[in-house]
Amino acid sequence: MSLLQKVYPEGRVVLREVGLRDGLQLVKTFPSTEAKRRWLAEEHAAGVRHFEVGSFLPAKTFAQFADVREMVRAVAALPGAHGVALVLNERGVNEALESGVGEIASVVSATEEHSQANARRSRESAIANIRRLCELRDAAAHGPIVHAAISMALGCSIAGAVDPNEVLRLVEKCLEAGVDAVGIADTVGYAGPKQVGDLTKAAVRLAGKKPICVHLHDTRGMGIANASAALDAGARVLDGSLGGLGGCPFAPGATGNVVFEDLVFLCESKGFETGIDIEKLVAVRAILREEMPNEPLFGGLARAGLPCRTARAA
Amino acid sequence: MSLLQKVYPEGRVVLREVGLRDGLQLVKTFPSTEAKRRWLAEEHAAGVRHFEVGSFLPAKTFAQFADVREMVRAVAALPGAHGVALVLNERGVNEALESGVGEIASVVSATEEHSQANARRSRESAIANIRRLCELRDAAAHGPIVHAAISMALGCSIAGAVDPNEVLRLVEKCLEAGVDAVGIADTVGYAGPKQVGDLTKAAVRLAGKKPICVHLHDTRGMGIANASAALDAGARVLDGSLGGLGGCPFAPGATGNVVFEDLVFLCESKGFETGIDIEKLVAVRAILREEMPNEPLFGGLARAGLPCRTARAA
Repeated sequence: MSLLQKVYPEGRVVLREVGLRDGLQLVKTFPSTEAKRRWLAEEHAAGVRHFEVGSFLPAKTFAQFADVREMVRAVAALPGAHGVALVLNERGVNEALESGVGEIASVVSATEEHSQANARRSRESAIANIRRLCELRDAAAHGPIVHAAISMALGCSIAGAVDPNEVLRLVEKCLEAGVDAVGIADTVGYAGPKQVGDLTKAAVRLAGKKPICVHLHDTRGMGIANASAALDAGARVLDGSLGGLGGCPFAPGATGNVVFEDLVFLCESKGFETGIDIEKLVAVRAILREEMPNEPLFGGLARAGLPCRTARAA
Repeated sequence: MSLLQKVYPEGRVVLREVGLRDGLQLVKTFPSTEAKRRWLAEEHAAGVRHFEVGSFLPAKTFAQFADVREMVRAVAALPGAHGVALVLNERGVNEALESGVGEIASVVSATEEHSQANARRSRESAIANIRRLCELRDAAAHGPIVHAAISMALGCSIAGAVDPNEVLRLVEKCLEAGVDAVGIADTVGYAGPKQVGDLTKAAVRLAGKKPICVHLHDTRGMGIANASAALDAGARVLDGSLGGLGGCPFAPGATGNVVFEDLVFLCESKGFETGIDIEKLVAVRAILREEMPNEPLFGGLARAGLPCRTARAA
């Protein structure tokens, strides 16, 4: 069985905790490495297996990810756990490959405007970078999974509306470049469920046996509805972050990722087994509250608890 | 054209603001009548046409609804606006009929346990009350719309899981009793979108040309996803409250109704025209903040604003 099939078993829903990377992308105060390891270990004990653990961005700009190598080792030490790290340029790619991380993710903006503003490069150059990453993966003895995420795929804070055909063209280019998995990101939470469903369905069709990962933000309260639509459209890999941690520099004041624990509830309610214990998961929020007391945490399950499924004593 | 067809035109999505009743059901501090009238008028100016304005419950227990007659008159004075008032017993029915309100809503619990705990009566007696209400409507010159809502239809805080066939049996009984519209309420926010979609589809089939109104609470963050599923299943009437006002005594600490402004965004994103201006609607929250400074308000649109659909100047 290939690494890809092992990490993303066909037909099974996989929920990825991206709080340790996307959730920390913009925070001023961030957890100590020790606290991050506890966060990881406690979520693992709750049944979570997929973690985005950091990024190979310059540590002097992103001090929160200076410990990415330690985090990669920490996730590798947990039975059955899978780590993902983000890269942007070739230096990052090389460092990520050296780290032995299980999956390397890179990003292409859906729009030229956002690509230039966010990464000071063209989309073409971002794809060339991904092509190079795939070559290096192929040359490696135990190559990691390569994941290309299309950011702003459902609306762009700079260019406005995004043509889905343009996104699908980029998905195709990434697949041609040799990636193992493609991400569709509603980076600024612009979309509603119909738009998410339509794009997901088309992307799933294009990608064939390769997983489409849907990465949603809850900026306008549509996160869970959009996740539900993505599942209905055939996506089986979804991102979320504990407590909905993580905003976006292009959506000031906005909430972050889809709330991970609510996402688990959604999946279970739709009959998809996640293997995740919601109550144990909710308890991990204590680490975030302690380490980042000023970060607002969101989520319905944390507020209300699980529904009572059996009759109560009167 | 009948009143029913005028108020709930077939195929058109109708969003009902229930904040003035369900949103105020449990608050300790509530807006003055004058503030409620402004709330009504400003939402009307934003395009909202359907309002639950109060209930004919004993004013000594529910002082927030002591002005229900004034509110009924206030909504009647707004062009094209439709008012709904809640009743529980025959005294309330008579008072509601006298008030001239456009729609009278009554409630049947989905479970015997909740019916006894909440209203100290059997479900059978609640349905008899609705049958009597329909008779009085038929005897009236200009009878109002009669609406029967099945509370706890998707899970009960006392009995636990609820058999959908039991709910459908109650829907059928209400239809036989002569109601014009039936409500399906996830009173304590237990359900996920699959459950909501399945029950809605079956209820829509049973009700034929009579509208099924889906009333959702966002207790566990599933509100908008459930609303999306209800629309997909054929429901065209949905309830919400500005800022998600209104909790439930059976779900302590939980958020209230689906956030009305996010519901508008959802519908528009799915291609359903609501005629409601989201920015004007969000601005009405100022009245709630002023009048009830301790009530938490929720919602994505209020936080993040509308997405920017066109390119920004660089």
